[in-house]
Amino acid sequence: MKKFEVTVLGANAALPQVGRSTSAQVLNYNENLFLIDCGEGTQLRLDQCKIKRNRISHVFISHLHGDHVYGLPGLLTSYNHFSRSKKLTLVGVSGLQEFVQSVLKISSGYLDYELEIREVPNDTTTLVFESEHLQIFAFPLVHRVPTVGYLFKEKQSYNINPAAIERYSLSIEEMQNIRFGTSIIRDGIELPLQDLTLSIHEPRSYAYMSDTIYSEGYADFLYGLTTLYHESTYLEDLVDKAIERGHSTAKQAAKFAKLINAKRLLLGHFSSRYDKRQVFREEAKEFFEESIIVKDGKTYFI
Amino acid sequence: MKKFEVTVLGANAALPQVGRSTSAQVLNYNENLFLIDCGEGTQLRLDQCKIKRNRISHVFISHLHGDHVYGLPGLLTSYNHFSRSKKLTLVGVSGLQEFVQSVLKISSGYLDYELEIREVPNDTTTLVFESEHLQIFAFPLVHRVPTVGYLFKEKQSYNINPAAIERYSLSIEEMQNIRFGTSIIRDGIELPLQDLTLSIHEPRSYAYMSDTIYSEGYADFLYGLTTLYHESTYLEDLVDKAIERGHSTAKQAAKFAKLINAKRLLLGHFSSRYDKRQVFREEAKEFFEESIIVKDGKTYFI
Repeated sequence: MKKFEVTVLGANAALPQVGRSTSAQVLNYNENLFLIDCGEGTQLRLDQCKIKRNRISHVFISHLHGDHVYGLPGLLTSYNHFSRSKKLTLVGVSGLQEFVQSVLKISSGYLDYELEIREVPNDTTTLVFESEHLQIFAFPLVHRVPTVGYLFKEKQSYNINPAAIERYSLSIEEMQNIRFGTSIIRDGIELPLQDLTLSIHEPRSYAYMSDTIYSEGYADFLYGLTTLYHESTYLEDLVDKAIERGHSTAKQAAKFAKLINAKRLLLGHFSSRYDKRQVFREEAKEFFEESIIVKDGKTYFI
Repeated sequence: MKKFEVTVLGANAALPQVGRSTSAQVLNYNENLFLIDCGEGTQLRLDQCKIKRNRISHVFISHLHGDHVYGLPGLLTSYNHFSRSKKLTLVGVSGLQEFVQSVLKISSGYLDYELEIREVPNDTTTLVFESEHLQIFAFPLVHRVPTVGYLFKEKQSYNINPAAIERYSLSIEEMQNIRFGTSIIRDGIELPLQDLTLSIHEPRSYAYMSDTIYSEGYADFLYGLTTLYHESTYLEDLVDKAIERGHSTAKQAAKFAKLINAKRLLLGHFSSRYDKRQVFREEAKEFFEESIIVKDGKTYFI
């Protein structure tokens, strides 16, 4: 099974505190690294977590509030000191290009490598990355400013049973089809996949939903998700404030995890008003058992 | 004697490393706090050094390269969470206003307090702050982009000897004059200050010179300085690179400290190519004995 894990670099809302950074995560799929959001200090958090920044190919930005992007100018310009030559792709909502270009211009920042900036709509889903084994989609969230979430979706793929190759005299083309889940016909009869393949694992998926109010709009799109990261800025006693500020409570995050039948829920983006975070888990667990409070620097399997 | 000290929050050139932040310092004069430069992560460094950010009244920016300003948007917007109501004054070269305003606009950042931004020329000295006991000047530095240094200059002031008040029947106006160093006339004879005042200390001064090439242009202006912070990005074997990049070597910093007859030299803004910093001190000491390598988080008396 390919590596599929996420390292949380920071999960504080609004501002960094000692030991608690603002939003940033590194998703590792089969040693391909993707950065999600880039709060102030993200480049230092990468070093602290011993993550090689040059291995990041894409940065996915949810929205342009400072606690999700103020680390971007420093990350981009510092790459010059890491001899980056590989292209970096930035993906985010409208305004991302203006943000990066105006900051670089005023601060006389230059980049020794190719930077591609791709802006996506915040009212529909967009396929933003595709490889042999993985698809990444942006999808709309509901916040005070245009915001998207990101879905990382492993493709279903099959390992061919070597014994089947000889038994059925499989051609190269047939083997290719089987790998992507197409069963084949022999003497007018469809051979079931389980006769042709070794045991397979269920494809895994991860969604990043921060910042957002509780919204069921994309529940179908996310149904059956393996691991959900959902913001829970507040507890339920401040649900009115959550709605007013475009955020969610731990209870709402848990309700959404249950609604989409997720396997587990990672809770994050905590308001700095809360000293202890265990209370978020206690509130969420009443509605969704597999609720986990993320910790800065910790890696979670998906 | 009033408190006059500087806490170095970071002294790394170009980019932060673990344990080594980019440029930022807090100058404390008699419990009035001034921030000098604001590299990425400065707000967190303030917390780590237990410096109350609300007590900062002014931020002085040397120039707009990222390693001196990328922490500014986060610092400014985070103040909303610290109930700041007191005005904050930002001082820096042309472009500072555009930097702050465009970043705040794109990131939907708002400020709950008054922010005054004052741009100063980089071809002449400017008095940017004055109180009863302190003057602060911006003065030109020579770098790849418009850059200024800052001089913090304690005013000469005198404590009146209580015995002299009766002996010479001093008026309120005369006492005021004496405090600021004007001697007075009795029966056509000038009474020397030492007869009217208690023992005094020499007024102290501090200059921040980063980033700059070696330049003697403002040596007279700084002559007799108490404490000089001078960048030393490189060692002398890379003097050509220093000139090309608008920086200085440790030897050049020491030469400048000697030229202006400073009491001590703080060396900083080190390139991350050097693992050990003691070499900067060794090089500087050959030319100026009182050369000190600054350390992140350490406070230096002026």
